[in-house]
Amino acid sequence: MPITANDTNRKSWLEVPSNSDFPIQNIPFGVFLTKENIVTVGTRIGDYAIDLGALQQLNYFEGIELTDDMFMQDTLNDFISDGKKTWRLVRNRIADIFDVNNPKLQNNQTDRDIVIFDIKDVEMQLPVLIGDYTDFYSSKEHATNVGKMFRDPDNALLPNWLHIPVGYHGRSSSIVPSGIPVHRPMGQTLPNGETSPVFGSSRSVDFELETAFITTDVNIMGENIPVTETEDYIFGMVLLNDWSARDIQKWEYVPLGPFLAKNFASSISPWIVTMDALEPFRTKGPKQEPTPLPYLQQKGKHSFDINLEVAIQPENAEATVVSRSNFKYLYWSMCQQLAHHTSNGCRVNSGDMMGSGTISGPTPDSFGSMLELTWGGKNPLKMSDGTERKFINDNDTVIMKGFCQNGQVRIGFGEVSSKLLPPFVRQ
Amino acid sequence: MPITANDTNRKSWLEVPSNSDFPIQNIPFGVFLTKENIVTVGTRIGDYAIDLGALQQLNYFEGIELTDDMFMQDTLNDFISDGKKTWRLVRNRIADIFDVNNPKLQNNQTDRDIVIFDIKDVEMQLPVLIGDYTDFYSSKEHATNVGKMFRDPDNALLPNWLHIPVGYHGRSSSIVPSGIPVHRPMGQTLPNGETSPVFGSSRSVDFELETAFITTDVNIMGENIPVTETEDYIFGMVLLNDWSARDIQKWEYVPLGPFLAKNFASSISPWIVTMDALEPFRTKGPKQEPTPLPYLQQKGKHSFDINLEVAIQPENAEATVVSRSNFKYLYWSMCQQLAHHTSNGCRVNSGDMMGSGTISGPTPDSFGSMLELTWGGKNPLKMSDGTERKFINDNDTVIMKGFCQNGQVRIGFGEVSSKLLPPFVRQ
Repeated sequence: MPITANDTNRKSWLEVPSNSDFPIQNIPFGVFLTKENIVTVGTRIGDYAIDLGALQQLNYFEGIELTDDMFMQDTLNDFISDGKKTWRLVRNRIADIFDVNNPKLQNNQTDRDIVIFDIKDVEMQLPVLIGDYTDFYSSKEHATNVGKMFRDPDNALLPNWLHIPVGYHGRSSSIVPSGIPVHRPMGQTLPNGETSPVFGSSRSVDFELETAFITTDVNIMGENIPVTETEDYIFGMVLLNDWSARDIQKWEYVPLGPFLAKNFASSISPWIVTMDALEPFRTKGPKQEPTPLPYLQQKGKHSFDINLEVAIQPENAEATVVSRSNFKYLYWSMCQQLAHHTSNGCRVNSGDMMGSGTISGPTPDSFGSMLELTWGGKNPLKMSDGTERKFINDNDTVIMKGFCQNGQVRIGFGEVSSKLLPPFVRQ
Repeated sequence: MPITANDTNRKSWLEVPSNSDFPIQNIPFGVFLTKENIVTVGTRIGDYAIDLGALQQLNYFEGIELTDDMFMQDTLNDFISDGKKTWRLVRNRIADIFDVNNPKLQNNQTDRDIVIFDIKDVEMQLPVLIGDYTDFYSSKEHATNVGKMFRDPDNALLPNWLHIPVGYHGRSSSIVPSGIPVHRPMGQTLPNGETSPVFGSSRSVDFELETAFITTDVNIMGENIPVTETEDYIFGMVLLNDWSARDIQKWEYVPLGPFLAKNFASSISPWIVTMDALEPFRTKGPKQEPTPLPYLQQKGKHSFDINLEVAIQPENAEATVVSRSNFKYLYWSMCQQLAHHTSNGCRVNSGDMMGSGTISGPTPDSFGSMLELTWGGKNPLKMSDGTERKFINDNDTVIMKGFCQNGQVRIGFGEVSSKLLPPFVRQ
């Protein structure tokens, strides 16, 4: 049995602040850089980053079959390739090592100095080498809102939407971890009422509140994975801010979909929270009507109750929360997304990332983008410093958080926080 | 000066069949597996594969600054990262080693046995680890044909098409080299006249005749590359068969573009022909009207005169050529595509691949897909065995070839040849 938030009494000898996203029940995986310029795979408990490469070298994973350099790497791809059994053994061993009743590392100051870092002293990296990044479009509320604004208010959903977990390919090379600032993109747009486009900086840079899941090696090319088996191939989840330039998008997206409006940047939270850690927060997703085709049908609970929120922090001002949503609002489950993705034999590898699409809830304060929250700029949002926002301003920081709560135990993602810089100007 | 087809008198001591795509003036780069299970970077002259890793170990690249394991790798990414100066030094050295007037390797049978393989004795691999794959849509004839068939015959081109090299993200994980068979995909489609979709095998599997270029490291995220500088970042080109399932595409593609209709497979020719080798075949592309925005403007010749052809070979029958086209018909140049791609700061790395989009010419026999050649299935094509094709049948092999001709010298790509297998059935 993997450790989960149901082990409410489990405590670590490492101090965990109340309301921390990272109690001993979480044990996420990430990659960090130390002040000594060493990159390693790690985990986090409270405000401590833990070097799994060092733990392995010091023999704390004795008895678990791991390649010698499993954690002394700059990505988690090899570890993820090893499969669910290994993930569970390693998470449980970590829980054991840091359990308040285990004196071994707790009482070994020499080892502790090698293994444990203050979170402020490490720099989080991308946790995986993302071979391919797919972004879905799985919130009915979001698809409906966008359809109402840009197409037909009476037929907001396109005919395929209730039958297909609609998705498209994103750009792996522009995915960055939380903390990396992003330039406002330049691009081609068609000003209202004009017939010729212009080139300049985007005037409507938006966030999209999303989560994403990371896969292990799923299939060989040409073969599909039945929806009932998909859970074995999902390693864990992160928060995703799918930065979007609405004016560029509007002009470029027919007929092949969004391109430069999206691929200037996508920001993710750096700790991958495992599906094992999220298990107690399983819940039912929305009722699917009409019933999906058999290859997308599944029984039981396949959504997760994950609270999500977005805040905007203007420079030199306090952050203002602008949206509170929840992962459980998504119409299509991650299992359905993955089954659909491989239904044609498309190969999915270890470290691939699949975004949920913007997660909008049913109420206006739960919408997952400025486009929806301000209804196309008509209803600006007020910031803490009195200024208003239709979209994101230069030097604003967008902060997304996500967490699950199970009585006293909170399992969280930390945050994905990124500042929007002015456009890049070539010297 | 790099070696090119203009060096018409240059001959190799290796035999080169007349009409070979690979005279000593070509010197493409690829990766191959030997019978001894060794993977190495290589080049090709005539029907010989040449192990560049072995050449380097035997000190034939003395004087050229290369990392020790530059060619003893399973991808060309590191070599491509080294930049144009290195590519030229290495190509010229190879031309020198195999020049008919150079006795060094020619007269050293021991070294020859280590370095030179019959092309039939090696298995070609993907030449690069493709981080991201973008596919453009840059043939005006193709976009017009598709627009006529599926949208409005009088307004076939969408409003953005003449202003933007329209493109979208493809799937890297499903790119395979020539020779790897491809399963007919399963997928969701909406039968004509129905309102509910069905799931089954695609009934309209098509090829798309394309080329693709491979980039070196172009930019850091957030920064653009001016169109005038783009040529420095293009390493070379391959042929690309962008397999497409038209019925799946038709149902899924709104509003985010093609997805499962494309990502079941994309096949490429295994030898990357360098831009240096293609230099003598530079030509002007079509006149661009209206004039593109300044960030896409370029002077001079930025297209290439590359003959392209597609043949279909039914099982146990001769191949029938069904299309003859040319790269020079493309409206948007590779430079414009790359400048547009980075105009928003999108990062482009070594080994990224960018497809041209289907290359259709002005006449019906030069169209680059069955969709166009049969005009949506209305005019089936006759095969050598008397059978007809609206789309591709199970066990057909699709063979694409490409070459440039300069007087006596022919610089070619070889071929991308792949067989369509029946759908995968889970046992």
